[in-house]
Amino acid sequence: MKLVRIGALGKEKPAVLIGEQYFDVSEHFADFNESFFENDGLAKLEAVLAKGGLKEIKEVSRLGSCVARPSKIICVGLNYADHAKETGAAIPTEPILFFKSTTALSGPNDDVIIPKNSEKTDWEVEFAIVIGKKASYVEEKDAYDYIAGYCLHNDISERAFQLERGGNWSKGKGCDTFAPLGPFLATKDEIEDVHNLNMWLDVNGKRFQTSNTNQLIFNVPQVVSYISQFMTLLPGDVISTGTPHGVGLGFNPPIYLKAGDVMTLGMDGLGEQRQKGIRYEG
Amino acid sequence: MKLVRIGALGKEKPAVLIGEQYFDVSEHFADFNESFFENDGLAKLEAVLAKGGLKEIKEVSRLGSCVARPSKIICVGLNYADHAKETGAAIPTEPILFFKSTTALSGPNDDVIIPKNSEKTDWEVEFAIVIGKKASYVEEKDAYDYIAGYCLHNDISERAFQLERGGNWSKGKGCDTFAPLGPFLATKDEIEDVHNLNMWLDVNGKRFQTSNTNQLIFNVPQVVSYISQFMTLLPGDVISTGTPHGVGLGFNPPIYLKAGDVMTLGMDGLGEQRQKGIRYEG
Repeated sequence: MKLVRIGALGKEKPAVLIGEQYFDVSEHFADFNESFFENDGLAKLEAVLAKGGLKEIKEVSRLGSCVARPSKIICVGLNYADHAKETGAAIPTEPILFFKSTTALSGPNDDVIIPKNSEKTDWEVEFAIVIGKKASYVEEKDAYDYIAGYCLHNDISERAFQLERGGNWSKGKGCDTFAPLGPFLATKDEIEDVHNLNMWLDVNGKRFQTSNTNQLIFNVPQVVSYISQFMTLLPGDVISTGTPHGVGLGFNPPIYLKAGDVMTLGMDGLGEQRQKGIRYEG
Repeated sequence: MKLVRIGALGKEKPAVLIGEQYFDVSEHFADFNESFFENDGLAKLEAVLAKGGLKEIKEVSRLGSCVARPSKIICVGLNYADHAKETGAAIPTEPILFFKSTTALSGPNDDVIIPKNSEKTDWEVEFAIVIGKKASYVEEKDAYDYIAGYCLHNDISERAFQLERGGNWSKGKGCDTFAPLGPFLATKDEIEDVHNLNMWLDVNGKRFQTSNTNQLIFNVPQVVSYISQFMTLLPGDVISTGTPHGVGLGFNPPIYLKAGDVMTLGMDGLGEQRQKGIRYEG
């Protein structure tokens, strides 16, 4: 199944994408949120779809992030060797973790706001995992049992805030609109092999990033198991698995997002996103 | 006003503490959560108290964290010069920020779970701020307008996870039960001077930490304003302002929490906490 959320920011309603058609399921479910995943929502949604008779949504005003605000968005840093190299960092010997503020969550095609005083806003196409049930001290062999599905994520990053303002990476990762998620959550069964998915990202039509999840240093079960050793993952939580080479920071001189620039990105089986950069206006 | 949440974990109900008595307000409010603060809950609560006739809670089974799970718990690192020194770090020239997983939230007197494979679980008495309304690009002079109140926080930290496992601090800060918050949220009017509050922390009755918020490097309005430059703060969000010297890591050799150890801590005007360390049992 492909889960989407349709409507104005903060007023999204749950729907499903079947072929090219969107169907409203908001009579059956409040939202694709923690409670939905926790209470066997995916199985219930399957039953609703099997029954049929859903109303088609003919006009899609806006796609929201494909899941509602989770308890956390946790990211794996430097999880592609070629990206670690371009940033001048060592290849990590265990996953590097950081949080994105959940207030960064954004629709897949919403404008990305370049923050006030930002000169180094950058892109990162990423493969994201959505957790399906509470996960604590999960073993790698059981990791898939805790996964609801997958989606596309642009892990927008302000490099000066992230790397030049002291300490951890939080400042450059959690700005508003810095986590476009979607267009849809593909449930596990939709993706044949999570470790063989091509991904790409263009800025203004020029290809910057291209890779495949077969290049991940720490793979999907490793990442889920690893994080669950340090904190409990809740249903609906998002794990973003890291970006390959080709970010703006990696060029000499670096190339950063300007107002009016358009990022397009996509992944096998997970659809495409399109964001325009705009300047913050207070 | 002093806001508390009473009941079993995950089933807490909102109440207020007046003198030594607890009064149930769960007929009027669902919880002290984002929606409460966003919808002028504090003014409504004041009106409810003025009207009177609330039912006293005679038996307090358990105090939960004084606010419901927020969108984020954001912490300021190394915000006391003597603590920066004891950890061997430089005095920061601007606030260091990191997130605690909100799944770490815990009641003020709940047991603290020493994680599996942890040898370096440590304590940190801290002064925490609770946000009252949506805050983005707030100026220092306006910062108090965005604050609902204050509470006591023990920013429990696993030093090996935080400092020896690569990258950011997330791994050592967000373990389950690592954020005891409360006993109560004191609204702004309860605290005469936020920059003159004594704080202390004992382990097994021995004093380890003692300081005063007059020692903060970055003070309350500076911290709120600063964070709001990088992300939007939501009503109910928690900012923890950092710990003074006296953490286990600072001793030679270091002293860490063992099962059976009891931490007690307190602050002027914000009450006391008491936690027993227990080993994780899966």
